[in-house]
Amino acid sequence: MKGNVIVGQSGGPTAAINSSLAGVYRTAKDRGAKKVYGMLHGIQGLLQERYIDLSEHIKTDLDIELLKRTPAAYLGSCRYKLPEIHQNKDVYEKIFEILEKLDIEAFIYIGGNDSMDTIKKLSDYAIVTGKRTKFVGCPKTIDNDLALTDHTPGYGSAAKYIGTSVKEIIRDGFCLEYSNGVVTIVEIMGRNAGWLTGAAALAKGEDCPGPDLIYLPEIPFDLDDFSKRIKELLKKKGSVVVAVSEGIKLKDGRYVCELGSSVDFVDAFGHKQLSGTASYLASFVAGECGCKTRSIELSTLQRAASHCASRVDILEAFQVGGAAVKAADEGDSGMMVVIERFSDDPYQSGTAVKDVHKIANDERVVPRSWVNKEGTYVTDDFITYVRPLIQGDVAPIMVDGIPRHLFRPY
Amino acid sequence: MKGNVIVGQSGGPTAAINSSLAGVYRTAKDRGAKKVYGMLHGIQGLLQERYIDLSEHIKTDLDIELLKRTPAAYLGSCRYKLPEIHQNKDVYEKIFEILEKLDIEAFIYIGGNDSMDTIKKLSDYAIVTGKRTKFVGCPKTIDNDLALTDHTPGYGSAAKYIGTSVKEIIRDGFCLEYSNGVVTIVEIMGRNAGWLTGAAALAKGEDCPGPDLIYLPEIPFDLDDFSKRIKELLKKKGSVVVAVSEGIKLKDGRYVCELGSSVDFVDAFGHKQLSGTASYLASFVAGECGCKTRSIELSTLQRAASHCASRVDILEAFQVGGAAVKAADEGDSGMMVVIERFSDDPYQSGTAVKDVHKIANDERVVPRSWVNKEGTYVTDDFITYVRPLIQGDVAPIMVDGIPRHLFRPY
Repeated sequence: MKGNVIVGQSGGPTAAINSSLAGVYRTAKDRGAKKVYGMLHGIQGLLQERYIDLSEHIKTDLDIELLKRTPAAYLGSCRYKLPEIHQNKDVYEKIFEILEKLDIEAFIYIGGNDSMDTIKKLSDYAIVTGKRTKFVGCPKTIDNDLALTDHTPGYGSAAKYIGTSVKEIIRDGFCLEYSNGVVTIVEIMGRNAGWLTGAAALAKGEDCPGPDLIYLPEIPFDLDDFSKRIKELLKKKGSVVVAVSEGIKLKDGRYVCELGSSVDFVDAFGHKQLSGTASYLASFVAGECGCKTRSIELSTLQRAASHCASRVDILEAFQVGGAAVKAADEGDSGMMVVIERFSDDPYQSGTAVKDVHKIANDERVVPRSWVNKEGTYVTDDFITYVRPLIQGDVAPIMVDGIPRHLFRPY
Repeated sequence: MKGNVIVGQSGGPTAAINSSLAGVYRTAKDRGAKKVYGMLHGIQGLLQERYIDLSEHIKTDLDIELLKRTPAAYLGSCRYKLPEIHQNKDVYEKIFEILEKLDIEAFIYIGGNDSMDTIKKLSDYAIVTGKRTKFVGCPKTIDNDLALTDHTPGYGSAAKYIGTSVKEIIRDGFCLEYSNGVVTIVEIMGRNAGWLTGAAALAKGEDCPGPDLIYLPEIPFDLDDFSKRIKELLKKKGSVVVAVSEGIKLKDGRYVCELGSSVDFVDAFGHKQLSGTASYLASFVAGECGCKTRSIELSTLQRAASHCASRVDILEAFQVGGAAVKAADEGDSGMMVVIERFSDDPYQSGTAVKDVHKIANDERVVPRSWVNKEGTYVTDDFITYVRPLIQGDVAPIMVDGIPRHLFRPY
C-alpha cells in the first residue's frame, strides 16, 4: 500500500469486533500502510475529525492479543445514518476532505446492515466524483442477520455464551423445588432474526435436556398455545425453562413486550428498543399456572462476554479484518468481506468479497425449515449450522483474577 | 468410619456447592465410609425418603472433576425450615428413624444461615435423645453473610463473575455514544449484605476505571444525592456505570424496588423476594437527567456461572467438604466448618470447626469502615479482602463448545 488506512466501528458492539480491528491493523501494517488511523465513534466521529493513530495504541504483539480479547468497540461506536447523497452533499464533501488530508487509500468499516449502507454510499460517491479511496465493509453483528455471508463475526461468541449461560440456568432451575413448579423465561437479543435465541438449544446435550421451548421472532407467538404447553410441561417436571427472543410478536403484529409495558425509545434507524418480553411472560405464566416464575434477560452480557468467546469466531473476525484491507489494496471498493462455509464437519471456511449493494439493509432470518412445525424449537439443521461456530476457547489473559483488556484512555 | 454418611444441599445454589459435595464424597470414601448417601432436595426430601447412593453417580475421578465444575445443587436444594423441637417432635422422630435405618454416622449439610439452623436443631435433638449421629455444617452462600468464617465458599466465584461482567459492561458502555450520555445500572444480589455488590469494584484496574458508584444495602440510599452525583458524572463522561444491591433501602426503610413495583413473593423464611431496583433507578435517572439509561440484572447468572469460577473458591469448597466429614468422624457435632485466613498476600487459609449455635441466623454485613464516607464506594480494605478469593481459574471441561457438567437423571 502506498497511502494510509482508516478503520471505524459502528452499531452494537460484540465480543469479536476488536478482533477484526486487530486484523485490519495487522494486515495494513504487513502490506506497508504508513499510518493506520482509527475513527473514534465511527463516521460520526470522523465528521468531527476525531481519530487516533493506532500505532500509538497497539505497540506490541501482546497488545494485538489483548485487543482480540477486549469486548465492545475499542474505537467507540455510533449509530449515525449518512444522508442520501442528493439530500446533503456537504456531508460527503466534508468526509472526503478529511480522507484526502489523511491520504486515505483504504476505508474499512466494521459493522452490520446499517454500516454496509455507509460503505455503499461512500463508495458510490467516490466513484461518481472520481476519488481514489477504496471502501470495504467488515461484517459484524451478534444478530447474524447480514445477507450473503454464511454467518457474521460476533455471532459465534454470543451463541457460545448463550448456550453456556442457558445450560447453567437450566441446572439452577432443576435444583430448586417449588410445590407448583418453577418456570424460568430467558430473554435473548435479536429483534427480527432468531439466530441468537435458537442458540439456546446448544445447552442440550448428553448432560442437559436443554430448554423446553424456544420461541423465535420469525414465528407468530400464541399466548394460549404457550400457556397450554407450559401447563403440560409442569405436569411432567418441576422446572421449565423457556428461551424467547426479545422481538416475539403476536399474530396481529403487536410485540409481546408491548402487552405489559410501553416501548419508550426509537433509535436513529427507527428501530424500536425492546425489553420486558420475559418479565411480561413470567407474570402471565404466574397468573395462568400459579407457579413460581423467574425472568432473566441476558441483556448486554451476551454481546460483551469476551471471557466466554469462541475461538473460531475470534479467529474468523481477525481474518475478515485482514481480508478487507487486502481487498481494498487490490482495488475493490463498495464490497463487503463475507465468510463462505465449505463444510460443517470438519468445519472449513474462507473469506470472499461481495458487492455491498446486494447486502445493505437486507435482513437474513432463520429459515422456516430450521424451526419445528409447532414453532417451538429449532431443528437439528440449525444446530449443525451453529455448532462449528462456537468451537474452541480464547483463554482470557488474567491479571489478578480478572480478564485484562486493551485500554484506550477516554 | 464404621457407619455411613449422608449429605444434603440447601438454600440458594452457587458455582461451588457441588465442589463441597465432591469433597464430602471423596473424604468419606477415603475414611472408609461404606455408603455415601445424598438427600434429594435436602432435609425436605429426606423426610420423604428421597435419597441416592452417590457411588452410583460418582464413578471415576473424572466424575469428581466434573462435579466440581457443575453449577447449582447436584442433589437438589430446598428451603424447608425445621420446626422447633417442642413444636413438632414427630418430624424429628421421622428423620432419626430414617438415619438409623441407613446407619448414618455423619450427617453433612451444605448451606447458609438457614441450613446451619437445621444442623443446630438436629444436633441438639441427637444430644438430648442420645443418638450417635454427628451433624456438621458446610458453609455455602454467594452472599458471604455467614458469621465466624472469614468468607463462604461460593462467594469467590460469584465475585469473580461480577467483577468480570461489570468490566465487560463498562467497556460496552464506553463505546456507545448518546448526545446526553448513557447511564447503566447493574443490579447485584445480596439482600442485606453488600459483599457481592462491592465485588463490582474488582472491575477497576490499570485497564478499567471501574464502576462510578457502588451502593451497598448496609447504607441508606438517598435518591436526591444519587441524582446529583449522576448529573455531575455526566458532565465529565459519556457513560456512567452504577452497581447497586437488589436490597438498597431509603432512610425510612422502604426498599428502592418497592418504589416502582410491588413485592410479590415472600419465601418460607419470611424473606421478601426483591427485584426491579435497577429498572426503577434507570427510569428515575432517565427522568432526572434526560439521558439514555439501561438496567442490567446479573440475576441467576451470578450464582450459576461455573464457567467463570475461581480456583481458590472451588478448591476451598472441596476442602471444606472434606473437613466436615473429618470433624464428624472425629466426634464433632453441632459444628460448622469455617475458613480462617492467615494472610492476604500471599493468601493463606485453612479450615477449623466452630460451634453452630454461635453462627445460625446471624447475618454478617460489610463493615462500615470498608465503605467510603459518602457511602458510594468500597475502600481498598474491601478489595484487599476479596481479591485473593477470585484468583485462578478452573478450566471448564469443554465438549463440543459448551462446558460439560455431571448429569443426574431427574
